[in-house]
Amino acid sequence: MSGLFISFEGIDGSGKSTQARLLADALKTRGYDVVLTREPGGSPGAEEIRALVLQGDPDRWSAETEILLFTAARRDHLERTIRPALADGKIVICDRFADSTRMYQGLSRGDLRALVDQLHSLMIGQEPDLTVLIDMDPGVGLSRALSRQGAEERFESFGQDLQEKMRSGFLALAQEFPDRFVVIDGARPLEQVAADVQTVVEARLT
Amino acid sequence: MSGLFISFEGIDGSGKSTQARLLADALKTRGYDVVLTREPGGSPGAEEIRALVLQGDPDRWSAETEILLFTAARRDHLERTIRPALADGKIVICDRFADSTRMYQGLSRGDLRALVDQLHSLMIGQEPDLTVLIDMDPGVGLSRALSRQGAEERFESFGQDLQEKMRSGFLALAQEFPDRFVVIDGARPLEQVAADVQTVVEARLT
Repeated sequence: MSGLFISFEGIDGSGKSTQARLLADALKTRGYDVVLTREPGGSPGAEEIRALVLQGDPDRWSAETEILLFTAARRDHLERTIRPALADGKIVICDRFADSTRMYQGLSRGDLRALVDQLHSLMIGQEPDLTVLIDMDPGVGLSRALSRQGAEERFESFGQDLQEKMRSGFLALAQEFPDRFVVIDGARPLEQVAADVQTVVEARLT
Repeated sequence: MSGLFISFEGIDGSGKSTQARLLADALKTRGYDVVLTREPGGSPGAEEIRALVLQGDPDRWSAETEILLFTAARRDHLERTIRPALADGKIVICDRFADSTRMYQGLSRGDLRALVDQLHSLMIGQEPDLTVLIDMDPGVGLSRALSRQGAEERFESFGQDLQEKMRSGFLALAQEFPDRFVVIDGARPLEQVAADVQTVVEARLT
């Protein structure tokens, strides 16, 4: 068996991190070998790069330099965490992957989507087998996100206009890659969303 | 005036850093506005990336991740230091630039030259107007380099075989880009080498 690579995507406050964790717990309970990880970060080197990018003045890196740093972190994460786990037949659940770079650096910081894609194709190549997009109205998502502000609030202080743009962007991305994307309505009780996620993943495991 | 961008390249111990400094001093004495800088590093952000890559276990980054990190540092250096100085009409003298990545990551850590070039073309683009290659027999260079071992000796502990490979690689690079490369024999007294460097630069300033 060659494992299964599942990513969770969505705007800030959509609940994707919670859903990633609930799925990991559910699969572990059923006896699967699961690696729950996240981006940026997910390996010791990538976590150092994450700290370099997210700490300090948010404007100190240009969008292009930031894309390079996130791609370096992703390369390390892929080499050290994701690929070894997949080779061992494990299920890798990743909170954000390349689609977040396509949206946050490729869309929100300028029209850099083509550059993000070229760099991804040159240095990363890998896509998840399944991407779960937790879709949510930005008004709901933003109030959720702001209620848990932490040190890394920079990605969560974009304001509602930008979150609307991100939501549309993610939905467009799901249409662009229909084979791997599944869109799940996140504006419902946690348990209902989690049940839908499990049904979708179930279908990929059998 | 749009400035002049000069890089110095060569194997470890070739004296390129000393020659870069001597040239900067000579040009400043003659009234030119000179920015002396170096890679990896050369801007606050790039220096942070330099520290991330060069400190700690040298094997903790794969060659590909290292190339991405150096390219991120170069992009920052170019945006924050080199391009603004050139736009002000200054002379930028840089100790190592992309040719060092072509050699050290592209040649010494595997056959990654094509990848280095593709990434350079996608994310950097810029080449120096003039590249001064200080050529030297690795036996001489290595003993010079080892005599001043510091915290960043990782690039200087390759051993003589690899230094021979680097020397040939740099000479081949000079043939590949004859318009911008000038090869200067570094195995002579400092002052003679410096005089040759100044003659070459002189020709580009008039």
